[in-house]
Amino acid sequence: MAWLTATYHISAPPDRVEARARALALEQSVECPLEAIGDPRILAEIVAQVGDIRQLGPELFRVDIRLAVETLGSDSAQAINMLFGNASLWDDVEFVDVDVPESVLAAFAGPRHGIAGLRALTDAPERALTNVALKPQGLPIPALAEMARTFALAGVDIIKDDHGIVDQRYSPYAQRIPALQAAVAEASAETGRPSFYAPNVSGAPRDMHARTKLAREAGCRVVLVAPMLVGLPAFRELVDDFPDLVYLAHPSFGGATRIAAPLLYGKLLRLFGADAVIFVNYGGRFAWAPETCAAVAENLRAPWAQLAPAMPVPAGGMLLSRVDELLDFYGPDSMLLIGGNLLIARERLLERSREFVEAVAGHRFAPLGIA
Amino acid sequence: MAWLTATYHISAPPDRVEARARALALEQSVECPLEAIGDPRILAEIVAQVGDIRQLGPELFRVDIRLAVETLGSDSAQAINMLFGNASLWDDVEFVDVDVPESVLAAFAGPRHGIAGLRALTDAPERALTNVALKPQGLPIPALAEMARTFALAGVDIIKDDHGIVDQRYSPYAQRIPALQAAVAEASAETGRPSFYAPNVSGAPRDMHARTKLAREAGCRVVLVAPMLVGLPAFRELVDDFPDLVYLAHPSFGGATRIAAPLLYGKLLRLFGADAVIFVNYGGRFAWAPETCAAVAENLRAPWAQLAPAMPVPAGGMLLSRVDELLDFYGPDSMLLIGGNLLIARERLLERSREFVEAVAGHRFAPLGIA
Repeated sequence: MAWLTATYHISAPPDRVEARARALALEQSVECPLEAIGDPRILAEIVAQVGDIRQLGPELFRVDIRLAVETLGSDSAQAINMLFGNASLWDDVEFVDVDVPESVLAAFAGPRHGIAGLRALTDAPERALTNVALKPQGLPIPALAEMARTFALAGVDIIKDDHGIVDQRYSPYAQRIPALQAAVAEASAETGRPSFYAPNVSGAPRDMHARTKLAREAGCRVVLVAPMLVGLPAFRELVDDFPDLVYLAHPSFGGATRIAAPLLYGKLLRLFGADAVIFVNYGGRFAWAPETCAAVAENLRAPWAQLAPAMPVPAGGMLLSRVDELLDFYGPDSMLLIGGNLLIARERLLERSREFVEAVAGHRFAPLGIA
Repeated sequence: MAWLTATYHISAPPDRVEARARALALEQSVECPLEAIGDPRILAEIVAQVGDIRQLGPELFRVDIRLAVETLGSDSAQAINMLFGNASLWDDVEFVDVDVPESVLAAFAGPRHGIAGLRALTDAPERALTNVALKPQGLPIPALAEMARTFALAGVDIIKDDHGIVDQRYSPYAQRIPALQAAVAEASAETGRPSFYAPNVSGAPRDMHARTKLAREAGCRVVLVAPMLVGLPAFRELVDDFPDLVYLAHPSFGGATRIAAPLLYGKLLRLFGADAVIFVNYGGRFAWAPETCAAVAENLRAPWAQLAPAMPVPAGGMLLSRVDELLDFYGPDSMLLIGGNLLIARERLLERSREFVEAVAGHRFAPLGIA
């Protein structure tokens, strides 16, 4: 049995923190009520455990949660999911640290070059390094190349693209990268000092892969990637695919939670192709405001150019006893997702699931529902 | 010239909101001071423009920013980047809406099935749909299959994996999916009512692709994906690759900003393979606390099992005049990233860049620096 410790800050009054910590442990492991679990192995080996709780302020606590390493499986998306998937949706929780046992760390290669590799590349064994950005986007390639050349002549170590420059019409990637790489390499040869051009690699995974390959073939040794923008698992796959390159990570999209829910869940996910979108229901474990939930549902279904309407799927602590209320609220173009509240029936699961199915099928919509 | 309007909430006193709105427009387009821009086309056609500013509360405003469609290029990662890349790092800004012209929308296929497709699939033309989750993780495949069968016998429309179940040892994907799909299909044949098993598809992009393919070959018609976890561009690529499947989006990791900066930038990005990590410097455009910046840098460099140290790259409104202060703060194992503050030199770019290079190379570290 291997466990890792994830640490969170929980904002709660002292008499509530233990309950919140227990809820967090369930959320980040089995995601269902304990009474829904019959298998003693799962209770002993899979359910996360609450560790130390330390008070940091009048209503602020530092809470250790021990997660079963087994639940992380072998891939990086799942590691993030277990560390801060659903809990990221709780306003009172911040993920602050993780203590990973060496057996788990062994699966992560981490930086292939790191500080030592950057120092070797730039031939700068001791001093701090310099990094500049090619901007603004909109400049044509010759102007960017001239700027890159200037920076290299000045002896800057790493000359990176602005993270907003990707493959726009005014400086297409396939032409830009060889031109800028050549400009920097030539200037570097002139000065006798190593300078490196770091193109911004972005896009969907296969585009990123192709762009990275092109950069490497053009002679680039360093690339810029925004991991939160392209997705942490996609970033890691890229590093694994091209371990000879040096990766400079950009923080873009690192604060994504401050996208309003009706926009992120109601519009962006629909735009990106979701047919049905699970979101946090009001009055449940996550407790968004009813107006927020209504706005998400409305955005998913509203006419929007050629885009098909997508199905709202309210979820998160849904109760069978609330089916009528929720259907009146969301209307018939919705899909109700109930999890733990069915599973607590255990050996009566079939009957309780049938009640759910029948409650939905038999519902008569109130004439004044929002939908 | 095509523009799209992105809408943000800005928290600011009334006498500051216009300045914040202008800063936001620059941040989400050219990301440099206006005085660094010499090209009139860029000023007219690329720099984002401040539109309506409407007061919502004593210190809360709704601000429209017009973004040049050209800057979004053709890919989905870049669309997110321009809409809310860097601005996501500003505490006083929330991204609340986007009004995309139809010319841009035409590039997005959106849901391939949506509500109508789900209704056709489940043969439920009018009523609300039902959705349940297979939990808890840790159950062996036969137990999950029995649970799935029970739900299907009850007539549930969509029976999805818990989003925590991926490919763990206790229920490996390649065995689980055919078993659960068969259980649901058989029960559905018994009842004569369509029920569908929706496996959770996660992982790095190629793993996701392979898992989706396996699910489709097993007969699945619906899959569950957490777009924020796997990355929005990776999600879109998957939808484009398998347009015949119905996608149920899960909100996991949707609130990712509440990962403490020293953890996200200092540890997680290192763990995922970044050799150098750009993060927000104190006292600049983003203004994290100095202790936060120091903690990010320390985590990037601290001994950590077999993982190479990664290079801290403070950035964001860095000034040439602060080089000495910043080097004393971060120490020599750091890379300073300066952007606009060099570009404002325009035709003196070479000289100003040389000053930067020389300031870094010639710095004598104060004996009491934190590093």
